[in-house]
Amino acid sequence: MERAVAATAVVTPRGPGTLRGSGAPGVLELRPGAVAWDEDGTITYVGPPEGLGVEAEWLEGRTVAPGFVDCHTHLPFVGWRADEFEARLAGTTYRDQAGGGGIRRSARMLRAASDEEVLDFCRPLLAEMLAHGTTALELKTGYGLSVEAELRQARLARRLASEAPQTCVVTLLACHAVPEGVDRPSWVRAACEELIPAAAAEGLVDAVDVWVEDVAFTLADLEAVAAAAASAGLPLRCHADQLSPSGAAEAAAALGARSADHLNHVSRQGVAALGAGTTAAVLMPTSTLLLRAPPPPVGELLDAGALVALATDCNPGTSPVASMPEAVAIGCALYGLSPNEALVAATANAAWVLGLAPAHGTLAPGARADLVVLEGDAFRHVPYRPGHDPVIRTVIGGEVAWEREGGC
Amino acid sequence: MERAVAATAVVTPRGPGTLRGSGAPGVLELRPGAVAWDEDGTITYVGPPEGLGVEAEWLEGRTVAPGFVDCHTHLPFVGWRADEFEARLAGTTYRDQAGGGGIRRSARMLRAASDEEVLDFCRPLLAEMLAHGTTALELKTGYGLSVEAELRQARLARRLASEAPQTCVVTLLACHAVPEGVDRPSWVRAACEELIPAAAAEGLVDAVDVWVEDVAFTLADLEAVAAAAASAGLPLRCHADQLSPSGAAEAAAALGARSADHLNHVSRQGVAALGAGTTAAVLMPTSTLLLRAPPPPVGELLDAGALVALATDCNPGTSPVASMPEAVAIGCALYGLSPNEALVAATANAAWVLGLAPAHGTLAPGARADLVVLEGDAFRHVPYRPGHDPVIRTVIGGEVAWEREGGC
Repeated sequence: MERAVAATAVVTPRGPGTLRGSGAPGVLELRPGAVAWDEDGTITYVGPPEGLGVEAEWLEGRTVAPGFVDCHTHLPFVGWRADEFEARLAGTTYRDQAGGGGIRRSARMLRAASDEEVLDFCRPLLAEMLAHGTTALELKTGYGLSVEAELRQARLARRLASEAPQTCVVTLLACHAVPEGVDRPSWVRAACEELIPAAAAEGLVDAVDVWVEDVAFTLADLEAVAAAAASAGLPLRCHADQLSPSGAAEAAAALGARSADHLNHVSRQGVAALGAGTTAAVLMPTSTLLLRAPPPPVGELLDAGALVALATDCNPGTSPVASMPEAVAIGCALYGLSPNEALVAATANAAWVLGLAPAHGTLAPGARADLVVLEGDAFRHVPYRPGHDPVIRTVIGGEVAWEREGGC
Repeated sequence: MERAVAATAVVTPRGPGTLRGSGAPGVLELRPGAVAWDEDGTITYVGPPEGLGVEAEWLEGRTVAPGFVDCHTHLPFVGWRADEFEARLAGTTYRDQAGGGGIRRSARMLRAASDEEVLDFCRPLLAEMLAHGTTALELKTGYGLSVEAELRQARLARRLASEAPQTCVVTLLACHAVPEGVDRPSWVRAACEELIPAAAAEGLVDAVDVWVEDVAFTLADLEAVAAAAASAGLPLRCHADQLSPSGAAEAAAALGARSADHLNHVSRQGVAALGAGTTAAVLMPTSTLLLRAPPPPVGELLDAGALVALATDCNPGTSPVASMPEAVAIGCALYGLSPNEALVAATANAAWVLGLAPAHGTLAPGARADLVVLEGDAFRHVPYRPGHDPVIRTVIGGEVAWEREGGC
């Protein structure tokens, strides 16, 4: 049996793509609009309410949009690191903390925790994401820092994914920090020759990631990881130019990576390469805010034609944020994105980064009925109120997965 | 009968005051700590659990702090103005919108709404504040823009206050925008000769406020309002140096105002005057964020010895934020306050601004049992997670006024 909602506004990206210029897919705005789906949770209709073949629930003064896709998180992890945040406010730099320190600390906490303890810590965070409208997200390793511990974290990610109502994509962050007592080249070799093939053989991961930075891994390491990922048939992602310009964005684009993430210090050449290539620019405004870092050159990335996506970067070190509405709000306020640009970046483009487009991130016939009911009569109400959850209902695969007390 | 809670941490300002330097009252941190209160809701004990005379509820891994005091809001209002936020992202300046435009629009919406419609709009916002730990707040007029409509808004504020569990202080923002069809001097005269005396005679307000700005009112207007407020026995507050330096902070300090608010463009002389005088500097980081404005010189204000308070500025034009944890988070990230400085600014100092110290804003024997139970074992968890509500329970006058599903 088909089901349908109709609301004062239905807004959706027309698909992934650049946010500005003649090639931008833009946003479809129906005022009023309606969405219908079949019993399999596949959308059958998006259009004006009068074109519906079935009776719809009417949502007065509400906006229906695709569910948010959080395309960069560091879940599963266990334990917070609020004291590091406080130390940074007192003058310690993240560079001081990042050279293994904070990441190694999360690795120690992960090692000390049982599987159930890790899952118990993560479940409320996925529930919080659901209550903030996230219907698909990335999970990532990178707090293992040994072949076995990375594989364990990937298995925990798959367990979390199997329980969660959201669609989860798992990324192997094979090179995040150099493990204690190991030299960098040895770890890169282990990651490429043992970890990546083992994770791929066990079907544990959907992509491979690497942090290129002077306190982490080099461009040569990126190339080695890219080759191992390609051999395993896995797409590549890259933490690029977060603390300083390293040429990582250019290299990621040249390697055909799915994304280059952070980009606070991306060079002009990096901007041009992302604009010319197919590598998405994943931006994480709450990470920028909490690190008190310079924002990436967002206007230049958009003008160059880069596919820009937004994410929370949910992690205990630099961005303990589970809310995509908060990422959208800070993305507009700090980066100057328009609400509709932020909508595309937080849904269709993020789904593209995770390899989930076009089934996710867009409301269109044939796509999955993953959607949110939002306060207000336009998407602009999402970035307008930082610190506030504008999501009233989260629907996944056509079923109500979460609803605020009192409902719509 | 006495009641008590004990927790991994109890943190409280020792009182209002400057945040840095030898004169700063500082923060009392008990690890673990306990708070007890009598049946009147008055605190009888703050200290280590072993000193308690009664049995306490033990809150493992939690932090108990004073309830937040939101010392600058524009409630009651009715209707959002998210389209103005979107227009600013597209390049319109607030100066363009502020010269009566946005404020006059809120005045039209207020005029068009019945009393019940206004209260129905505001009630969920006060409930949201409660769920974010606000136990005392300011309500303000300024969307009336006629003597009668200002008095109506003050009466609505008093009605809202009488219903709300929070302690509410009402400020008459007598000069907010020049009403349409009236010249500025005529309105200032009406405000001083009719509005302020009438509001005072009816006991409707606890303070008087004025916006000094080239698009609003002049320093001479401030002096006139100050004289009228003094005649009425009401303390003075001032929206100062928000869009450009006008000398308002210096003038407010010279007039002995309770506070100078915003201060994004305060001059060196203004900083010095606030440091030397008794006028508090009220800062509103979410307003700065959403206006994409330069931050005030926070370090200089602190170094000068100013009493700094934080507030949400909750209003439909520039800061539709109800969450003090969000104001604290943005205050740390954007202004570089330490978590403990933000704690003092958001509790004891804010209570001082509202004339509510020392009964509010500090946990100490004799003070009111207005407190919050927070996630985590230290106050630093509040600014660490923007977009997240860290409050588990809000206690007002010793009674649980709000608790998260699942409790502590």
